[in-house]
Amino acid sequence: MVRGVNHTLMAASFCPSLPQHFKPKPIIKFRKSSSSFKVFSSQSSIDEVPTRVGFLGLGIMGSPMAQNLIKAGCDVTVWNRTKSKCDPLIDLGAKYKPSPAEVAASCDVTFAMLADPESAMVVACGEDGAASGMSPGKGYVDVSTVDGPTSKLINGQIIETGALFLEAPVSGSKKPAEDGQLIFLTAGDKSLYEKVAPYLDIMGKSRFYLGDVGNGAAMKLVVNMIMGSMMTSFAEGLLLSEKVGLDPSVVVEVISQGAISAPMFSLKGPAMVQSKYPTAFPLKHQQKDMRLALGLAESVSQSTPIAAAANELYKVAKSHGLSDSDFSAVIEALKVKRKD
Amino acid sequence: MVRGVNHTLMAASFCPSLPQHFKPKPIIKFRKSSSSFKVFSSQSSIDEVPTRVGFLGLGIMGSPMAQNLIKAGCDVTVWNRTKSKCDPLIDLGAKYKPSPAEVAASCDVTFAMLADPESAMVVACGEDGAASGMSPGKGYVDVSTVDGPTSKLINGQIIETGALFLEAPVSGSKKPAEDGQLIFLTAGDKSLYEKVAPYLDIMGKSRFYLGDVGNGAAMKLVVNMIMGSMMTSFAEGLLLSEKVGLDPSVVVEVISQGAISAPMFSLKGPAMVQSKYPTAFPLKHQQKDMRLALGLAESVSQSTPIAAAANELYKVAKSHGLSDSDFSAVIEALKVKRKD
Amino acid sequence: MVRGVNHTLMAASFCPSLPQHFKPKPIIKFRKSSSSFKVFSSQSSIDEVPTRVGFLGLGIMGSPMAQNLIKAGCDVTVWNRTKSKCDPLIDLGAKYKPSPAEVAASCDVTFAMLADPESAMVVACGEDGAASGMSPGKGYVDVSTVDGPTSKLINGQIIETGALFLEAPVSGSKKPAEDGQLIFLTAGDKSLYEKVAPYLDIMGKSRFYLGDVGNGAAMKLVVNMIMGSMMTSFAEGLLLSEKVGLDPSVVVEVISQGAISAPMFSLKGPAMVQSKYPTAFPLKHQQKDMRLALGLAESVSQSTPIAAAANELYKVAKSHGLSDSDFSAVIEALKVKRKD
Amino acid sequence: MVRGVNHTLMAASFCPSLPQHFKPKPIIKFRKSSSSFKVFSSQSSIDEVPTRVGFLGLGIMGSPMAQNLIKAGCDVTVWNRTKSKCDPLIDLGAKYKPSPAEVAASCDVTFAMLADPESAMVVACGEDGAASGMSPGKGYVDVSTVDGPTSKLINGQIIETGALFLEAPVSGSKKPAEDGQLIFLTAGDKSLYEKVAPYLDIMGKSRFYLGDVGNGAAMKLVVNMIMGSMMTSFAEGLLLSEKVGLDPSVVVEVISQGAISAPMFSLKGPAMVQSKYPTAFPLKHQQKDMRLALGLAESVSQSTPIAAAANELYKVAKSHGLSDSDFSAVIEALKVKRKD
Repeated sequence: MVRGVNHTLMAASFCPSLPQHFKPKPIIKFRKSSSSFKVFSSQSSIDEVPTRVGFLGLGIMGSPMAQNLIKAGCDVTVWNRTKSKCDPLIDLGAKYKPSPAEVAASCDVTFAMLADPESAMVVACGEDGAASGMSPGKGYVDVSTVDGPTSKLINGQIIETGALFLEAPVSGSKKPAEDGQLIFLTAGDKSLYEKVAPYLDIMGKSRFYLGDVGNGAAMKLVVNMIMGSMMTSFAEGLLLSEKVGLDPSVVVEVISQGAISAPMFSLKGPAMVQSKYPTAFPLKHQQKDMRLALGLAESVSQSTPIAAAANELYKVAKSHGLSDSDFSAVIEALKVKRKD
Repeated sequence: MVRGVNHTLMAASFCPSLPQHFKPKPIIKFRKSSSSFKVFSSQSSIDEVPTRVGFLGLGIMGSPMAQNLIKAGCDVTVWNRTKSKCDPLIDLGAKYKPSPAEVAASCDVTFAMLADPESAMVVACGEDGAASGMSPGKGYVDVSTVDGPTSKLINGQIIETGALFLEAPVSGSKKPAEDGQLIFLTAGDKSLYEKVAPYLDIMGKSRFYLGDVGNGAAMKLVVNMIMGSMMTSFAEGLLLSEKVGLDPSVVVEVISQGAISAPMFSLKGPAMVQSKYPTAFPLKHQQKDMRLALGLAESVSQSTPIAAAANELYKVAKSHGLSDSDFSAVIEALKVKRKD
Repeated sequence: MVRGVNHTLMAASFCPSLPQHFKPKPIIKFRKSSSSFKVFSSQSSIDEVPTRVGFLGLGIMGSPMAQNLIKAGCDVTVWNRTKSKCDPLIDLGAKYKPSPAEVAASCDVTFAMLADPESAMVVACGEDGAASGMSPGKGYVDVSTVDGPTSKLINGQIIETGALFLEAPVSGSKKPAEDGQLIFLTAGDKSLYEKVAPYLDIMGKSRFYLGDVGNGAAMKLVVNMIMGSMMTSFAEGLLLSEKVGLDPSVVVEVISQGAISAPMFSLKGPAMVQSKYPTAFPLKHQQKDMRLALGLAESVSQSTPIAAAANELYKVAKSHGLSDSDFSAVIEALKVKRKD
Repeated sequence: MVRGVNHTLMAASFCPSLPQHFKPKPIIKFRKSSSSFKVFSSQSSIDEVPTRVGFLGLGIMGSPMAQNLIKAGCDVTVWNRTKSKCDPLIDLGAKYKPSPAEVAASCDVTFAMLADPESAMVVACGEDGAASGMSPGKGYVDVSTVDGPTSKLINGQIIETGALFLEAPVSGSKKPAEDGQLIFLTAGDKSLYEKVAPYLDIMGKSRFYLGDVGNGAAMKLVVNMIMGSMMTSFAEGLLLSEKVGLDPSVVVEVISQGAISAPMFSLKGPAMVQSKYPTAFPLKHQQKDMRLALGLAESVSQSTPIAAAANELYKVAKSHGLSDSDFSAVIEALKVKRKD
């Protein structure tokens, strides 16, 4: 049901133009079986070959993702609301279409990476949206982070055209997107999942298939809820250490060597110690995810006192004007502030 | 002031009998300078050569630590309240003395690894305790986890004899002790720290010098506070995922690949999903550390709402009779329990 | 802008048939000015005389409220989805109409007391709803507890007909409704507020005018949020006292004599001590109000860590199957439960 | 076991000089039986007549308490560390002795009202402390607020002399002390409790006998824990109401009329709305009580998440420099503070 899959070698195989510097990634769980290869045969049905790939939305995440597809030798058609963002990709070999509908109509499978649920909705189901270009045999993969209800709405519109839908939010931000190290949390049509797996493997380091539409969104909320709480615990520890006369930089280092070592702590800790919060994941988005996760927990009566307490700190940080800082700025909510 | 140090190569160098299977560990920050080697010359002063090493307390942690010293070729004299626990080490080549005082009197430096502050106090300062065998030129290194005040009391008794004292609680449990992968959080006499560094490097993978006596205990509390809170956040996530129809095992796996991946999650998650909590670190000790950390935070008026909320869950788990289970059993505090 | 008003004497004056046992209530802030009396003259415009009063919804709250109006001598026309609930009031002299629209068409002012936002919406704006019977010169007073957005929707539909709207949720449950001791938290059209004041004064002991539609709902959420948190604090105290060997009944009594004495504690404490929770305000409604209040707080980035922690306990209580018990059953969430 | 007792009439009876303006208080639970009166006969044993009353400690609380005893016609001997504070009472008719020991030696029963556990300890058990003046037939009543362990220590010292001990911390601050409206939470020797009841009834409005020494302190902590949490909930409500555009003064008034109405809210709410916190009960003392209550809860593994969260806010308020403000200043911990 679930798999973390290595793919780099496969990617190298089916994309003849895969550039030399595209270095293989470590195998995660198992190599994809050789039968996977036939998806790249020359047949025209989605059952066999989604060779023409659309990509809608070329922001911070979408651009490097589409670029990785192009670099891997895929046949990519792009669209973005602001056309200028398409230019660097066109220079790399991408085709261009002036609307989501036209991209969808000209491709076997279309990916969408939009900034928020509203945009995801408009691009998929609005006027000249992707849905108007979909038809049986095609697939639509929404890799945006949207809430479950939005995902279900988009799913409904897509499958009404006879096409297939896959929800596939990613775990990972700008750097993993550039490095092809994203994690895909997919849900929806399983056959589509299997057809697009090679593409996911170009853009990411692993992928999970989680069942019904909505499960991808739920998984992402759960993970981000834990992440948000962890960050507040880490912040408490750094400040406490400083107050009792320890060097918080040393706390970061001690932690990095033990059982609670996490990339997030090593990455953000040194900056936090200097009260610097360069934005990788905006605090307002982390707070929104805490809120949505708490709502999810409420809906099933699951007690989550830690996340609830953590959310309060993100709210305080927001009221300090830190919405657009990195979410590690939540540490400021625990510092004494005096009005003078 | 602080260093994580590699040592394995050094250990291999100065202990002629170092067994073949004693595999080098990765370098952490820098290699120990060659001048370190002279501490293993044949001179008799602590200023130069603490060649005779005492080890008091051979429990779950102490036994493998002493064993690693013996295997590295060191001249080790052991003592344990229950003499039988000394036998396997004597078989490996250790000497034996019938009291802490006699161990201390016959060694250059003496390590102590006791279960709790009370035992640490008795072994150091009680009748026939180590202090009665100490004298100028000797060193006492308490690697037990004790609170700051106890550590200061022991320090006082030791330095009164003219000997030197180092507080050196370890981060890491049974497995890291066996593998020589402990982390030492030391504080106290800096010259003693430098003298015993080669021994710490045999037993551990890194070491930090944190200044005044009490700072080692404080650092350990800070780290364990973060650890305790993280575990409760992780538990919330696992239960929430299950309630909304996701497979919590997949949450464990997704987390293991992203920014919040931590050894603790990967190690304990799979068991937690099965409601199993084999004890590595007893829940009652984690709760005690949360309580002490909250006390530390109170003493400096540092707000720690997350740790406070997490502590409440450990209290609930204790009242469920889970004191002696692993601290990951705190997840039970978040499950619905019904009396019927 | 805001007033708590005494009214009993006024009520006695303008309702000729006011029964003898209708005892005056204590004056709260000021007596209503004599000019108020003219609203009960015989003129037909809302500007002057809303003499014909409609009442929609005759549940636990609505029935005694309507009954108090009838007993005070008012000309009341009732409607309820289940017609049989109208019978006792018809026996007391009420008129009956078979739909909200017909009630509204035949009355100067119509009150509505529905169980939830959905019902309030349907009765006001659905087919044959009150709005279809409204017209300029009439007023609609919704005394149901609904969220701000619903209240605004109803407001929009009503004023579109040219009629006036007042949101007027009540503080107080069954007993105060019977005793005419409710507190009205009104918002919306100020002139309508003034016109219906005599009726509010028959049904309640005080009334507040809070400005724009939505403010009544917000005020009720704020008060209920404090109430919900207070109950959890009280529960903690009762359980802690018992655990340390004190008699929790004595805690209830000690509290009743000091600065934190509150009617809620005296009323519910003795039953809580016996683990009894006869429902006055269902726990699920309290939890819903906590959730809505937290949502309100999020919307303005106000930190409310206590309410957030309290909400978690209500969630736990819900998962224990206590949704329909009184909200004081939240104390069960703090008790140790063991599965055996 | 426990009683709230009326006393005013009794007080009026046995103190011939009771001034006219000493107005009777409302009966709380039952009138003291007539047998109580014999304690004021002329016999010399404590079993019968403690007519000579000592009072140690004449601060904000002690002065009005002693004054009430004097005004009621009792034979009072006073002592205070700073002698000048005795003068107004001497003017009212009190006798004076230069040490606690001499007061105790010359009186049948001695009350002590000290500021903290340390002072209570010194005055009772230090050099020239009350214990040195105690002997069989005498009684010592400590009305200071001290922790359980201190109370037990003092108890031990007193009963070693053959005298009797009663712990009797009060609920109520300056104003109730002046008005004779305190609540006594007593524990210890029951016969002494009964002997001194008439005096407690002069100084307070009710009294509870709670069993073993330590229970008075525990009861006070439980009540203050609830009080501390309630204040934070109230603060959250006031701030939330303001943020959403309601008038927080109206919240205070709405609350004052409903089920959660409490004297504390009515008393402090109006000042809090104006960010004023005239000290009646210092915030640092409230925070200390929260901390001690949490410690008590830990000792019996009772979960108290609300109190834990509330305590964090008091800590924040302390770090804002509000230790000596009234504890209602905890509201500041929930306000946004910006360093600029």
